[in-house]
Amino acid sequence: MDFELSEDQVAFADMARAFAQNELEPHAAEWDQTAFFPVDVIRKAGELGFCSLYAPESVGGLGLSRLDASIIFEQLSMGCTSTTAYLTIHNMVTWMLANFGKPVAVAQWGEKLATGELLGSYCLTEPNAGSDAASLKTTAKRDGDDYLLNGSKMFISGAGSTDFLVVMARTGGEGAAGVSAFAVGAQADGISYGRKEEKMGWNSQPTRMITFEDLRVPASHLLGNEGDGFKIAMKGLDGGRINIASCSIGTAQQALNKARDYMLERKQFGKRLAEFQALQFRLADMATELVAARQLVRMAAAKLDAGHFDAPTYCAMAKRFATDVGFNVCDEALQLYGGNGYIKEYPMERYVRDTRVHRILEGSNEIMRLIIARRVLAEGATAL
Amino acid sequence: MDFELSEDQVAFADMARAFAQNELEPHAAEWDQTAFFPVDVIRKAGELGFCSLYAPESVGGLGLSRLDASIIFEQLSMGCTSTTAYLTIHNMVTWMLANFGKPVAVAQWGEKLATGELLGSYCLTEPNAGSDAASLKTTAKRDGDDYLLNGSKMFISGAGSTDFLVVMARTGGEGAAGVSAFAVGAQADGISYGRKEEKMGWNSQPTRMITFEDLRVPASHLLGNEGDGFKIAMKGLDGGRINIASCSIGTAQQALNKARDYMLERKQFGKRLAEFQALQFRLADMATELVAARQLVRMAAAKLDAGHFDAPTYCAMAKRFATDVGFNVCDEALQLYGGNGYIKEYPMERYVRDTRVHRILEGSNEIMRLIIARRVLAEGATAL
Amino acid sequence: MDFELSEDQVAFADMARAFAQNELEPHAAEWDQTAFFPVDVIRKAGELGFCSLYAPESVGGLGLSRLDASIIFEQLSMGCTSTTAYLTIHNMVTWMLANFGKPVAVAQWGEKLATGELLGSYCLTEPNAGSDAASLKTTAKRDGDDYLLNGSKMFISGAGSTDFLVVMARTGGEGAAGVSAFAVGAQADGISYGRKEEKMGWNSQPTRMITFEDLRVPASHLLGNEGDGFKIAMKGLDGGRINIASCSIGTAQQALNKARDYMLERKQFGKRLAEFQALQFRLADMATELVAARQLVRMAAAKLDAGHFDAPTYCAMAKRFATDVGFNVCDEALQLYGGNGYIKEYPMERYVRDTRVHRILEGSNEIMRLIIARRVLAEGATAL
Amino acid sequence: MDFELSEDQVAFADMARAFAQNELEPHAAEWDQTAFFPVDVIRKAGELGFCSLYAPESVGGLGLSRLDASIIFEQLSMGCTSTTAYLTIHNMVTWMLANFGKPVAVAQWGEKLATGELLGSYCLTEPNAGSDAASLKTTAKRDGDDYLLNGSKMFISGAGSTDFLVVMARTGGEGAAGVSAFAVGAQADGISYGRKEEKMGWNSQPTRMITFEDLRVPASHLLGNEGDGFKIAMKGLDGGRINIASCSIGTAQQALNKARDYMLERKQFGKRLAEFQALQFRLADMATELVAARQLVRMAAAKLDAGHFDAPTYCAMAKRFATDVGFNVCDEALQLYGGNGYIKEYPMERYVRDTRVHRILEGSNEIMRLIIARRVLAEGATAL
Repeated sequence: MDFELSEDQVAFADMARAFAQNELEPHAAEWDQTAFFPVDVIRKAGELGFCSLYAPESVGGLGLSRLDASIIFEQLSMGCTSTTAYLTIHNMVTWMLANFGKPVAVAQWGEKLATGELLGSYCLTEPNAGSDAASLKTTAKRDGDDYLLNGSKMFISGAGSTDFLVVMARTGGEGAAGVSAFAVGAQADGISYGRKEEKMGWNSQPTRMITFEDLRVPASHLLGNEGDGFKIAMKGLDGGRINIASCSIGTAQQALNKARDYMLERKQFGKRLAEFQALQFRLADMATELVAARQLVRMAAAKLDAGHFDAPTYCAMAKRFATDVGFNVCDEALQLYGGNGYIKEYPMERYVRDTRVHRILEGSNEIMRLIIARRVLAEGATAL
Repeated sequence: MDFELSEDQVAFADMARAFAQNELEPHAAEWDQTAFFPVDVIRKAGELGFCSLYAPESVGGLGLSRLDASIIFEQLSMGCTSTTAYLTIHNMVTWMLANFGKPVAVAQWGEKLATGELLGSYCLTEPNAGSDAASLKTTAKRDGDDYLLNGSKMFISGAGSTDFLVVMARTGGEGAAGVSAFAVGAQADGISYGRKEEKMGWNSQPTRMITFEDLRVPASHLLGNEGDGFKIAMKGLDGGRINIASCSIGTAQQALNKARDYMLERKQFGKRLAEFQALQFRLADMATELVAARQLVRMAAAKLDAGHFDAPTYCAMAKRFATDVGFNVCDEALQLYGGNGYIKEYPMERYVRDTRVHRILEGSNEIMRLIIARRVLAEGATAL
Repeated sequence: MDFELSEDQVAFADMARAFAQNELEPHAAEWDQTAFFPVDVIRKAGELGFCSLYAPESVGGLGLSRLDASIIFEQLSMGCTSTTAYLTIHNMVTWMLANFGKPVAVAQWGEKLATGELLGSYCLTEPNAGSDAASLKTTAKRDGDDYLLNGSKMFISGAGSTDFLVVMARTGGEGAAGVSAFAVGAQADGISYGRKEEKMGWNSQPTRMITFEDLRVPASHLLGNEGDGFKIAMKGLDGGRINIASCSIGTAQQALNKARDYMLERKQFGKRLAEFQALQFRLADMATELVAARQLVRMAAAKLDAGHFDAPTYCAMAKRFATDVGFNVCDEALQLYGGNGYIKEYPMERYVRDTRVHRILEGSNEIMRLIIARRVLAEGATAL
Repeated sequence: MDFELSEDQVAFADMARAFAQNELEPHAAEWDQTAFFPVDVIRKAGELGFCSLYAPESVGGLGLSRLDASIIFEQLSMGCTSTTAYLTIHNMVTWMLANFGKPVAVAQWGEKLATGELLGSYCLTEPNAGSDAASLKTTAKRDGDDYLLNGSKMFISGAGSTDFLVVMARTGGEGAAGVSAFAVGAQADGISYGRKEEKMGWNSQPTRMITFEDLRVPASHLLGNEGDGFKIAMKGLDGGRINIASCSIGTAQQALNKARDYMLERKQFGKRLAEFQALQFRLADMATELVAARQLVRMAAAKLDAGHFDAPTYCAMAKRFATDVGFNVCDEALQLYGGNGYIKEYPMERYVRDTRVHRILEGSNEIMRLIIARRVLAEGATAL
């Protein structure tokens, strides 16, 4: 076992930290308040490879491991949770296309997504199929060399401002086996976008409903084969869970760092907050849980990289634990700031708002528990 | 012992519930998003007596008990947490003037505050004196028949839109004994207001810094005597803690009610959420903790009404417990809503944002713990 | 509303406290370690009426309310949790006989149970019917003027040392409606007792399995009518839940009192534990949750006394919350004692062991959650 | 980074698991109930090297890393928590002698401790110096070529049944710098043993007070130099914290495994417990926290092996988190067993009693928080 970052990983982390400090953090509050999607900064991130961290080098990706990507996303999220979270989605979409797309589709979009010249969105969730993704209703009917897509997708990050979509739609019967995945240009005829959702947080990425009406998609834009969609989605989600967990860890670390600094500076009753034992204990618990969560995330990422049989279970554990811990650390950090934690002049309340959604998406933490329990209770299961 | 509401209390609660449903709830989301202070609606509330629930009848108040007021505020907060929270502050200020003001000051402002014709703000917190109120720096220097006030106050609810201030300022030496309370017209010369704070929630009430520069206040506007200020502030805070705790309870009850309805309606995996046992258990725990918190708040209010020796301790317990439970119930309710909980189309995320500050203000929950611990550890203390 | 004890309640509490201090506390550790059932002390308790607190005066009971009884049991459990818990069971059994027994049965056992001359046990749980009491398998077949009982009962408090049993057995078909309740002499032919269970705690009361083989019970010993058994059991359980919750509260209060004293005395790092802020905060939280739990228990008792429609829900809430809080307070108190908390020279570890079972019995806390959730989700349910 | 066990580690774990299953688990309940110290079985463990896992090969130790030892102790504790915990203390004592002892002392005891022929105890805690070890009062006065030791030690594991002691005593002034460590034969003149403490758990190891009266110790039995004692103690404790944390993890894993099996078998309401979603969720959370805790322990062990600057902080985090999680998992597992969890026929209640003390000893979890907070708040500290 080895719990230390490699030299390369340290270098990647340094580069990401610098980017976060210089390009993200100075603007994060404003992007939040004005609901601004910083496309230019995302493109700049792309120049450093952050738009295709684990996409293969064949499309211009860095071909890094999920563990490497986790380390990088953690650093980036210290600068802006919401923007980094979008980046993780873009990375997933890019990876999906590169890995499961046919040559013609990869040729059309691959490199441009990898560099960030084009931005992508991921279209799985539907109004009546949130946690229960396998029951999605969007249909893709074969029509000659094309498919015709009809239906609606909800809570789509980036929608309306992105160029490329991966869309899950039903080509077959009910359940997971009937779902296929498609690569779709985001401005095609037959796609319409709803109004921008007003959200508690994650404001630097637009979220919209997307409606498909007789959207025509060439068969060559099918990812994998018919019926592979759910499997592709699930594979994507394993990584997506690591990614979002990493964003929780990074944000929480930032909140912890700032709370620590605040405690060393702010005085009440003639003493620095740092001298109050009850607050010290709280800080200690925040740090402990955060370190535990980070380790769990990294272990899950390593399992995913190794193609470990139990990787989905570990990913579910990491996502559940890290997003809960991350939120709690941010919430406690806000409390340590007192009234200042509640106003937008300080970033604490934004950290709380941004990390709140991590407990819900990429499979809610309730779905994570189902996945974990199923595995623990499976016949012949060994200890994890 | 008797745990049932009286007929009068039921009637008050009904009236408050109707007002909340008709006048507050339909607008609460908009007030939040546009940061609109609904002065007209507050005046309407005043017509029903909600601006002077426990102020004496001599100024036109209803002369109700703190327990009665708690029951009413709980109902009102089900419609709008933030507006009700402001109302509780106005009630406190009105009560302070009526109880501790000299006749000339009471005559000038009492009835108009009681009816809601004028609105009040409470000026205790300073930039460097949050939890440690006794160390406040604002000075009031005697100058002939007047006092000259200099200093700054922070996080003042209503500031800039209200007509009347109760200001704590130092007339004597260091510590609590040197503090006095003053009744001040909000538009007097020597008062300037900072920009409106942008906050995580509580958006339907403006919050501003107030600066006093050689503000001239007649000695007849002193509340009580010189040096009584901290004592008055603490008396006000006991009630304020009950009030804010009541707002947490009401908001959480509203969140619980809506989460319950959502669970009965929303389907996933072919079943209503209400049929999932893990979610049932969560709902049960939310309901249980909420009922426990409500009882604690009502007991503390009754102790305060009775002038019980330990009322401040019970008020601290009620504030600590109810504001934590209230926030947690709202947070869990948001989670039960899934993705819908995160968008502003539904009120869940607003409940979370609004109740978050209750854990901080009127004495942070850390200060509550200090108060409680001091009492439990006091020599000769009996069990509570 | 009124949250103060009446003069009578204060007097009862004082009497119970004195009994606990003089007759229970000095022996509790020894009873625990030697697994001694203090029958003589229980009889002494009977002389003060503690064996029939809420049994009707017609059998010699005190005819008190459940709320009165809760206040008394709380005080008694401060002296010995386990013995008081047995007393609550005896009280329930006495009340069942007096309320549902036919005159001949009441005449035979009523007064002797009420005075504590005879002791009773309650036989509901079976090896395969713990939480699922309605599925019990013990049968009672009509045979002339008698019933013949066959089956086994498990975890029976007092079994082997008591004189009287209330037995739930199936006279009809499956489910709750087929269950009847019987009054049975504990030394009758056809009753055999298993070995004394070795338990984590509750050691001052013996626990045994009981087996019935063709036990002959006269029809006149039926409580209520055929098929009333489950209803009687449930009515008993509502009160039983209040009782066991009261024992948790009392034990936790005792643990808290002792932890407080210890903190005031024990020094580490040159300071009394009481001066460490982190420990102060913990003590404050223990006190707060305990007060909240006590209020919830008393409210539920009052609802039960009033025959309130929702009494079973409130009883379930009180049982769930108070037994969890009670255990946690004891566990934290043990921690405050450090190494001394772990050795039997001090009572902390006994409090933890004794209160642990309260979360399981009288309907486990999981069953409580089911009861509460069912009510909250019921159609047309109003807020609690 | 690498999160997989090496082949050697797997082999060690297998060997330890087999030993635990064959030699420990079948007797653990009896050892607990009869308070039997299984010296023969400990010697058998010694034959496999378990008495000197990380002692150097020069004394016959296996010379393994702390991480290896953690993996092995985890497996052993699945068979018997209490016996394994004693083994960890013996290992620490053996390591201390081998590492800091002068040749004459190492020659006298080293190999015999390494093989388990002799057993050791660790004497640090005193009646008035629990968490505050640096204030210990036992004195060691130089007297010619010897030291004369006077004072008392408390809570000494194995005391009265062991052959060798490492004793911390004061040779110099106040505070940590005045403490020295000595190797002492356990049956020397001047040593007397108190009565065996009756404890909540950890019953398979005797615990006694030890009193030294003019105990004569040759100067050659000093470990390190005068004044090194506290440093040696702290080094020992870093490893001790990993060890005790490992015992919590192993016990909790065993509890989890059994609870899982029980859920798959036990039926209530016509369904296996495993089918109840609320119980599934709980199992999922138990598994998740346990995996997170194990990773944290292993990371801390690796940091200790690497001599990492922050190893003490990570050890403190691991100890705090793993002992809390371990206890909670055992407590939840007991709850899943219902009434059966409370009786000694099943091991659940023993797991709870045994792991309870882990939160207290080797530095209480409160002391861990102090250590962690001090580090987080240190000037110039980087993120952990």
